[in-house]
Amino acid sequence: MTGRLIGVGVGPGDPELLTLKAVGALKQADVVAYFAKEGNVSNARTIAAGHLNGAEELPLLYPVTTEIPKEHVRYRDAIRDFYDVSAAAVASYLDDGRTVAVLSEGDPLFYGSYMHIHVRLSTRYPTEVIAGVTGMSGCWSSTSTPMTQGDDVFTVLPGTLPEYELERRLADANAAVVMKIGRHLPKIRRACERAGCLDRAIYVERGTMTNAAVMKLTDKLDTNAPYFAIVLVPGWEERT
Amino acid sequence: MTGRLIGVGVGPGDPELLTLKAVGALKQADVVAYFAKEGNVSNARTIAAGHLNGAEELPLLYPVTTEIPKEHVRYRDAIRDFYDVSAAAVASYLDDGRTVAVLSEGDPLFYGSYMHIHVRLSTRYPTEVIAGVTGMSGCWSSTSTPMTQGDDVFTVLPGTLPEYELERRLADANAAVVMKIGRHLPKIRRACERAGCLDRAIYVERGTMTNAAVMKLTDKLDTNAPYFAIVLVPGWEERT
Repeated sequence: MTGRLIGVGVGPGDPELLTLKAVGALKQADVVAYFAKEGNVSNARTIAAGHLNGAEELPLLYPVTTEIPKEHVRYRDAIRDFYDVSAAAVASYLDDGRTVAVLSEGDPLFYGSYMHIHVRLSTRYPTEVIAGVTGMSGCWSSTSTPMTQGDDVFTVLPGTLPEYELERRLADANAAVVMKIGRHLPKIRRACERAGCLDRAIYVERGTMTNAAVMKLTDKLDTNAPYFAIVLVPGWEERT
Repeated sequence: MTGRLIGVGVGPGDPELLTLKAVGALKQADVVAYFAKEGNVSNARTIAAGHLNGAEELPLLYPVTTEIPKEHVRYRDAIRDFYDVSAAAVASYLDDGRTVAVLSEGDPLFYGSYMHIHVRLSTRYPTEVIAGVTGMSGCWSSTSTPMTQGDDVFTVLPGTLPEYELERRLADANAAVVMKIGRHLPKIRRACERAGCLDRAIYVERGTMTNAAVMKLTDKLDTNAPYFAIVLVPGWEERT
């Protein structure tokens, strides 16, 4: 008998936004695994800290982050090897019949690192995925921003897209979220302006944390922002 | 002192996908309000049933559903009046200093009826919104479908869009969810085929319920489907 793999969504940051199912899975888990940068604490572990109940912990530490450009083949190879090794580490516990919960910020199958484990192991071991509240839901809820209604088209865009692509796609949707802001902030602001949505765009940093920063994008004048800041462009303009 | 308005996301259907924060809010609430069709039980109430703790209940019953076409001015007027009256009913409890939790399936500010109460009352009363797991997260998690990774562009489309719009938007995104399927099923299938994503499209009915139905969209040969069925088009095609 092998153990069970559980991808556990821990939500956007507020520990109270864990689901009952996630808490239950953490109670049952023999091993709790999480991704982190070398030398950093894992955000997902911090969120779940109140529910770990003495399970063995398996930190999965990224070998490279910003030292090698992302487009470089050496980065891709290093990161692929890292996911292979991480999956093998998780598999060795599963082979011993132990249940492993892999923590994932937000929702595991929506832009989450957990997926790299999932695609490597879910065909080989009994696997369950526990949905979580996404980071973007956390942001629009904590800022009381009605996002989408009725037949709105909604889209999620990475801030890394070229400016003309951001502009085109923002103009083509009723509501949007732009993720991965960082140094792309000035470009995103210009794209929002040209797409006609700058006036209603909202900039959010550390969405559901107690030190959240929220402002109109027009008031965020910096040329830089944290990588995990997001911009909300609410839809549902005729609010009745 | 007025009471507090709380928009409570109860998640996609599985009562275990309630958040700790939602459970806490239901415990504190003096009144629990929820939308339902006349003569039907409220799905949101069913999901939250284990946590109501004897609070007073305020059902908000839609006066019209399918009797009048949605585009008709009489439908719009009737529905606007209904939201006005519903908000007034909630407000009368808030004026009495009572805390009212308004239940919302999924996430309150993402295509939720709660928003009609929110836009009418949140500027007049202390208001909090508790994010929930969305219906779509519930569906891709229960079906173990990795949806988006890295710089994927993700979009949510209503099945009510014209066929050429569905096709164009499906072809223009890495990953997509099509909601509100119903009688639009054949059109959605054709749009997926022409957009080149039919082979990976997944049809999901009653996503996180015990009687869920999941199949490849190519295997769903009917001309009709429930309104709340959804189609998942996973992204992240180069899965490494």
